[in-house]
Amino acid sequence: MASVDYPEPVRRLIAQLKQLPGVGPKSAERIAVWLIQSGAEPSLSFAESLLAAAREVTECRTCGFFATEEGGCAICEGEPRDSHLLCIVEQPTDILPLERSGAFRGFYHSLRGRISPLDNIGPEDLRIGELVKRIEAGDFVEVILALSSDVEGEATGHYLAELLGGFGGLKVSRLAQGLPAGGGLNNADELTLLRALQGRIGI
Amino acid sequence: MASVDYPEPVRRLIAQLKQLPGVGPKSAERIAVWLIQSGAEPSLSFAESLLAAAREVTECRTCGFFATEEGGCAICEGEPRDSHLLCIVEQPTDILPLERSGAFRGFYHSLRGRISPLDNIGPEDLRIGELVKRIEAGDFVEVILALSSDVEGEATGHYLAELLGGFGGLKVSRLAQGLPAGGGLNNADELTLLRALQGRIGI
Repeated sequence: MASVDYPEPVRRLIAQLKQLPGVGPKSAERIAVWLIQSGAEPSLSFAESLLAAAREVTECRTCGFFATEEGGCAICEGEPRDSHLLCIVEQPTDILPLERSGAFRGFYHSLRGRISPLDNIGPEDLRIGELVKRIEAGDFVEVILALSSDVEGEATGHYLAELLGGFGGLKVSRLAQGLPAGGGLNNADELTLLRALQGRIGI
Repeated sequence: MASVDYPEPVRRLIAQLKQLPGVGPKSAERIAVWLIQSGAEPSLSFAESLLAAAREVTECRTCGFFATEEGGCAICEGEPRDSHLLCIVEQPTDILPLERSGAFRGFYHSLRGRISPLDNIGPEDLRIGELVKRIEAGDFVEVILALSSDVEGEATGHYLAELLGGFGGLKVSRLAQGLPAGGGLNNADELTLLRALQGRIGI
């Protein structure tokens, strides 16, 4: 006896959902069933949002943040900023958390990734050419590397520090590493404690 | 200074994704960013699958499993089955795991939920009227309650056992409870062990 399965449109929806990052087979099935059982409306407005985002959202050619044809880039074309400061991030999604900290009001540059030999991602796959042109054309005084504190982030940071060292007078800095706010010593791993000790500050 | 946020289509897509079951704010953001960065194609084919499922997939009026206008219901209109056996499940998604067990080749009836006073779901909200009509019209000999072994599942089972007791000659059974396959005693909770002891079988 042939085994019973979901109708083809259900199977296709589950397959699509499974491709999303962080959605496994079980979640994909649960979401598909929820969508189908909720009637047509949620699926229609979901599909509309997908199409609108695919149609309208672009990447800002300057900084790499999300932009729209209509509204432009909220950072590069938004309220005035300090044109001497440039903060380099791996992903456009890293920009909002930094903005919310309230500690930085310069410009940003998203690399759209980081150097990762295991994933076959080298400097030429990142927005580094754009970065160099931007620094050549602008009047930046300091570039802050706001990269992940893991192996790939550090490799990317070393590469950029060397590259940017070639610009006379340009200060290159990176984010401090140490204890996260609210974190006790017993929750911190050894590497974090090592970094916190190395970066200790006189009081 | 006004705080920077994602462009409106990105925010709307994130809001839509957050409504899906099991998708939190962080996952919604990650999925939205992944979709946007993957270019238009994945979003377009995802939207297409959503629209196709919303347009084509219906609920089988007999058993409650997913069906399509074109293909009908793979269970009620599929290969011949034992018309004396009816298995009652809470959700259409409960049907495929039972099918895959290979231990049952009768018909199914999905209730589309279970009795849950806390969620304001009573018997009148479930497909119980349809169930009664089906049993009256059919020649079922045994009805198997394949419901969850939690409070709501047991409440639903008690209600149905009483209701179906009114049909002379109809045998009503429920799934066995006990140790899951491959489960050691030290992983089983007290209630599971209680049920396993109560349901012990002579060898």
